[in-house]
Amino acid sequence: MIKKTGLILLILVSIVVAQRSHPNLVLTGDAANEIKENIGEYPMMDKSVNLAKEFVENAMNSPMDVPMPKDAGGGYTHERHKQNYNEMYQAGLLYQITGEEQYAEFIKTMLYKYAEMYPGLGEHPEGKQQTPGRMFWQSLNETVWMLHTIQAYDCIYDWLSAEDRELFEKNIFRPMTKFFLEECTHEFDLIHNHGTWIVAAVGMAGLIMEDYDLVQKSLYGSKLDKKTGFMAQLDLLFSPDGYYTEGGYYVRYALWPFFIYAEVLHNNLPDLGIYKYRDSILKKALYSALQVTYTNGEFIPINDALKEKTWLSPELIFAVNFVYDHYENDDHLLSIAKLHNEVSLTGSGLAVVKGLAKNPNPPQFDWQSVQFTDGPDGKQGGVGILRHGTPDDQETMFFKYGTHGLSHGHYDKLTFLFYDQGREIIQDYGAARFLNVVQKWGGRYLPENKTYALLTVAHNTLVVDEKSQYNGKRKESEKHHSDRYLFNSENPDLQYVSAKENNAYKGVKMHRTIVMVNDEILLKPALIDVYRVESEKEHTYDMPFYYKGHFIYSNYEYTPFTDQLNKMGKANGYQHLWKTAEAEPKETGIFTWWNGNRFYSIVSNTDEKSKVFFTMIGAEDPDFNLRNDPGMMRRRVDDNFTFVNIVEPHGIFDPTKEFTKDSYSTFEELNVLKSDEDYSVVEIKGKKDIDWVLCIANSDPGNDTSHSVSIGENVFTWTGPLFLLKK
Amino acid sequence: MIKKTGLILLILVSIVVAQRSHPNLVLTGDAANEIKENIGEYPMMDKSVNLAKEFVENAMNSPMDVPMPKDAGGGYTHERHKQNYNEMYQAGLLYQITGEEQYAEFIKTMLYKYAEMYPGLGEHPEGKQQTPGRMFWQSLNETVWMLHTIQAYDCIYDWLSAEDRELFEKNIFRPMTKFFLEECTHEFDLIHNHGTWIVAAVGMAGLIMEDYDLVQKSLYGSKLDKKTGFMAQLDLLFSPDGYYTEGGYYVRYALWPFFIYAEVLHNNLPDLGIYKYRDSILKKALYSALQVTYTNGEFIPINDALKEKTWLSPELIFAVNFVYDHYENDDHLLSIAKLHNEVSLTGSGLAVVKGLAKNPNPPQFDWQSVQFTDGPDGKQGGVGILRHGTPDDQETMFFKYGTHGLSHGHYDKLTFLFYDQGREIIQDYGAARFLNVVQKWGGRYLPENKTYALLTVAHNTLVVDEKSQYNGKRKESEKHHSDRYLFNSENPDLQYVSAKENNAYKGVKMHRTIVMVNDEILLKPALIDVYRVESEKEHTYDMPFYYKGHFIYSNYEYTPFTDQLNKMGKANGYQHLWKTAEAEPKETGIFTWWNGNRFYSIVSNTDEKSKVFFTMIGAEDPDFNLRNDPGMMRRRVDDNFTFVNIVEPHGIFDPTKEFTKDSYSTFEELNVLKSDEDYSVVEIKGKKDIDWVLCIANSDPGNDTSHSVSIGENVFTWTGPLFLLKK
Repeated sequence: MIKKTGLILLILVSIVVAQRSHPNLVLTGDAANEIKENIGEYPMMDKSVNLAKEFVENAMNSPMDVPMPKDAGGGYTHERHKQNYNEMYQAGLLYQITGEEQYAEFIKTMLYKYAEMYPGLGEHPEGKQQTPGRMFWQSLNETVWMLHTIQAYDCIYDWLSAEDRELFEKNIFRPMTKFFLEECTHEFDLIHNHGTWIVAAVGMAGLIMEDYDLVQKSLYGSKLDKKTGFMAQLDLLFSPDGYYTEGGYYVRYALWPFFIYAEVLHNNLPDLGIYKYRDSILKKALYSALQVTYTNGEFIPINDALKEKTWLSPELIFAVNFVYDHYENDDHLLSIAKLHNEVSLTGSGLAVVKGLAKNPNPPQFDWQSVQFTDGPDGKQGGVGILRHGTPDDQETMFFKYGTHGLSHGHYDKLTFLFYDQGREIIQDYGAARFLNVVQKWGGRYLPENKTYALLTVAHNTLVVDEKSQYNGKRKESEKHHSDRYLFNSENPDLQYVSAKENNAYKGVKMHRTIVMVNDEILLKPALIDVYRVESEKEHTYDMPFYYKGHFIYSNYEYTPFTDQLNKMGKANGYQHLWKTAEAEPKETGIFTWWNGNRFYSIVSNTDEKSKVFFTMIGAEDPDFNLRNDPGMMRRRVDDNFTFVNIVEPHGIFDPTKEFTKDSYSTFEELNVLKSDEDYSVVEIKGKKDIDWVLCIANSDPGNDTSHSVSIGENVFTWTGPLFLLKK
Repeated sequence: MIKKTGLILLILVSIVVAQRSHPNLVLTGDAANEIKENIGEYPMMDKSVNLAKEFVENAMNSPMDVPMPKDAGGGYTHERHKQNYNEMYQAGLLYQITGEEQYAEFIKTMLYKYAEMYPGLGEHPEGKQQTPGRMFWQSLNETVWMLHTIQAYDCIYDWLSAEDRELFEKNIFRPMTKFFLEECTHEFDLIHNHGTWIVAAVGMAGLIMEDYDLVQKSLYGSKLDKKTGFMAQLDLLFSPDGYYTEGGYYVRYALWPFFIYAEVLHNNLPDLGIYKYRDSILKKALYSALQVTYTNGEFIPINDALKEKTWLSPELIFAVNFVYDHYENDDHLLSIAKLHNEVSLTGSGLAVVKGLAKNPNPPQFDWQSVQFTDGPDGKQGGVGILRHGTPDDQETMFFKYGTHGLSHGHYDKLTFLFYDQGREIIQDYGAARFLNVVQKWGGRYLPENKTYALLTVAHNTLVVDEKSQYNGKRKESEKHHSDRYLFNSENPDLQYVSAKENNAYKGVKMHRTIVMVNDEILLKPALIDVYRVESEKEHTYDMPFYYKGHFIYSNYEYTPFTDQLNKMGKANGYQHLWKTAEAEPKETGIFTWWNGNRFYSIVSNTDEKSKVFFTMIGAEDPDFNLRNDPGMMRRRVDDNFTFVNIVEPHGIFDPTKEFTKDSYSTFEELNVLKSDEDYSVVEIKGKKDIDWVLCIANSDPGNDTSHSVSIGENVFTWTGPLFLLKK
């Protein structure tokens, strides 16, 4: 990295050179001219311009309103101020692209109203739960307001009179940046997506107001010590692979300010080489975000996540456009731009429509089996994704073994999610939140997010003694991470990922290995899930599976609770689970459910010491905030135990052709022949003469190591960490 | 109708003339030749032929199996015998179309196996719950087997040796028709879709075996008294409009044998004029079936119905092809054929592909607001469908006020269903059944179908004293029907339907009027539901709404049951409802839920005497057979009361653009100003100065009648049965 003093000089020089003309933040004057000259040439660009025109013309034909701030998220004043910045922002772009002064007039009129209102505002009346803003209940929305409005201002800067500029800067941009920098310093110096929004907003305002101190603080933190600010965020929020520590849902949101500000820096401080920074970390960030989607484009909802979010979110339009333009013009990105069916009104947006004109049928995005490391150094665990099949009907297994994931993290180490048929089959609850729905706590995270959704029992991973990992203490959780043990996707018929977690529960070591195995006997690959837990003391081990679909059958007797439902427990999320049935399977337990056109079974190594519960989410939920989704939970009181579960998609349910096939699982019997620190050996039997033995070396991941294990009269020998013997 | 003796003569003459060549049941020799000559001409016909080839070639490359009958629906032997008849049937068509003997050989080989097995079969081992067959657990499947196999036999009839024909007739077709006629006489003489299958199968066998007695019995019943048989079924199962008394789900299934046998009669007894019979009742039957779908093609699931069924079901391919060909070549039908993307291998299939070649972009099917009468005379009530909007986002309200609907009928008079956004918004449970899933009672109707799904409380209609209509007695219910009072869809902004039911509960008169009202103030039309109930005695009136989506908000306090769930009652379906909350709203109650991209509210005229319950289906369900769907139930203990509920779609929930709007209902206050035998007058108030008065004349449906009602100082005057005054 360049030394501080040198860089400051560099910045000043660059700014002096680059900042002579407006606009020059995201949309540059040259790009605006080129878009203008190409109107009628590229349908998707025309559509994007027309969408903006429609939006702004509708605004210009309606009464303008800059209301006194009053409501929380989803309420009128909240939504209106959001609408206003969007109207100004798009009007600004349109002024540049069309040259029509009506757009500039519209912005000026609205800025007058803000200039009148803003100086008198105190803390937002609803700003109790989170960091409050003035116009909005949280300062986050206020930074987004500024990030857009400053671009509108940039677009009409030259058109405005010097007096108007002075008024707007004095009454709005100056006090707002002061508020952000001085009263929201904690947020400003946060290594977190909220921090990215605020530094981007302040940096962009700094560039326009030619206040280079603001620009430098945006890059290097309020103390200019480089421990925070945009560059530190680029260093610390992404692993060397580009994986964003909060996960897929929030990276979508975070990429927006990252790319907006990167583009601003690219245009204004070209010598900073932002797109090449940290071995092109921004490019890696986009590709890793795209990989953390299922084939329906939905972000895999680990941590706080709303499941409805897909890569169609407008945030991703910028990222896709900029990465396409500034790196290798990757055609795969064009296929996503085609789905967006819209481009950014920027030079890169133009590059994308030109690319599509040359290649109107670009290749589909290439979802792969892939692992990502977590942590700035890439040494804090990570996530592993195994996939099988073409995108129209792909199995995807996502396994999480990284860091906590900041303030939106869940206590879910070693959890997994499973998809098939374009839908969730074994789900993660995601977040308990109805975004922007004012009746649901003003659209904020609901109380049940803390009391259920983020706790361990809400996930498909082991719960020890009915408590959450790290006792639900974020500070503790953030000190540790899980460790990757294996990842191998070379053989599409035998892919696996394995990780260990030794800190989440004191005195308990956990090691989970998930194998995606394909075989001609099977309809599609099955998952073999081997979850080994070790402790010197006896504990209650609970292993939930939140299956999606309808209960079809279990091969064991159970006691259903048909007269009255009671809760699974009193605390740590158990109070939110109704117990619908309980069972004590004596032998290998099979549970089958139905979803879409297929059946799914979980085959478990239950025995006479095992219990199984069936549950439904929704107890202790006075406001009906939770979804009433079902679950199956294995329980074992033991010191050392190895849970083996096979998740198998099977059969056909075709209601159109009235045809059903193979509604029983192929797998029928599981025996753990051995499981200790060094080896787990599992016997797997089933229909059609399935007689397999899965051998895992638990302490030596080497690919060349030879292993030999004697069990009774049998000796199993193999090379490498994992071997599936098919007799 | 022609006299009996004359007709017998006519039949004999026709048969002698027509029956000289094979095949001549559904596929004729001429059509087979024409299809052959046109191979390569029409892509959809080629595809249909290739699908058959693929299916049969796959069969020919696999071991043939004609297993001893053992399993219930969904089990191996059940599915295998279904597969076998399909293989023979399609091989027969292919033999005719290609002339390749391998197909004929395949059929012959399989028929040998059946000829060996069939004579030794007794009653099916699983045939306990319904009318048992020999090869199948219910005779219904056996008739379907015969209907297909006899066509295969027809296709290779001329190719077979006389000895083989004798063997197959002696060992299979002869004893099977005897079994159907003599041991399944009850089914044979049933006015029901099972009856249609069996008479069609027997009649087709009769034609091939030249046993004209069988043919006549198939047409006029086992006693030849014309009270039963195919012609009586055409007379009695459809209303004069073509509405099938069992409803949309079963008509789909019933149309199959109706059209197969009609085509056979068309080819073999042309003088019968089957397609013109009863003023072209078969054509009307198809069109009314198509109207009883929502815009996603799903049959509206009244009575016993599985919701997955759409008009893509293969049963409808024949009906669409034959009606297109034998009536006016309606282009709208081509659009459905295009969705089928397959045609029948018949002359009519050829007509359809030729039609599509001429008109490759036929107009979409035209869903309309429409009423259908019920009962053979059209005087037994009916159903009314109100629609608004284009098919891509259409509101549809279906209101049921007809007959019981035979053995699959539900106790659901005056119930309604509501759709929007291409999905269910207020649902009917449909049937409790997992078709062909062997673990779920062998795919039969589940016990919960009788104890919940078909009872009154499972529907969106009034329950009196926690009992079902007609005390759940089918014989009683079949004696009566509701009566249509009004139907008017002339004004798309004010459509309405109204019906009365005076027999379902002794001493209780019920009258429901549903108005679909559009107004520029609203996002989309709202339903105003006025349900008037009258009795000399006090009763407990319960009014459930099975909303689909997530509870968002109520404007009244409620007591949620968060620690323990208990049942709503002990019997009549109440034992299957968990009570999740209860409330006593003092004023107009508003309940809002979320589904997809919209909010929905039910605004109710609750007051200090009203109760509201929130429920979830799933109590007393030891086998997890029921879906855990939510409901909202109003309760009123009273003698006379008028329930008014407005169902309003409102607002936008856009998670992609993070945008929410109008999550509160527009309507806010309801007052029943008057409600008696003659008039109901309801005041409706809401946001944006809504101040409406709905006036309904309850005893005079005349369009020209003038009405005048004084309420306090106001006098309301209007003409016609229903008037919405917008102040």
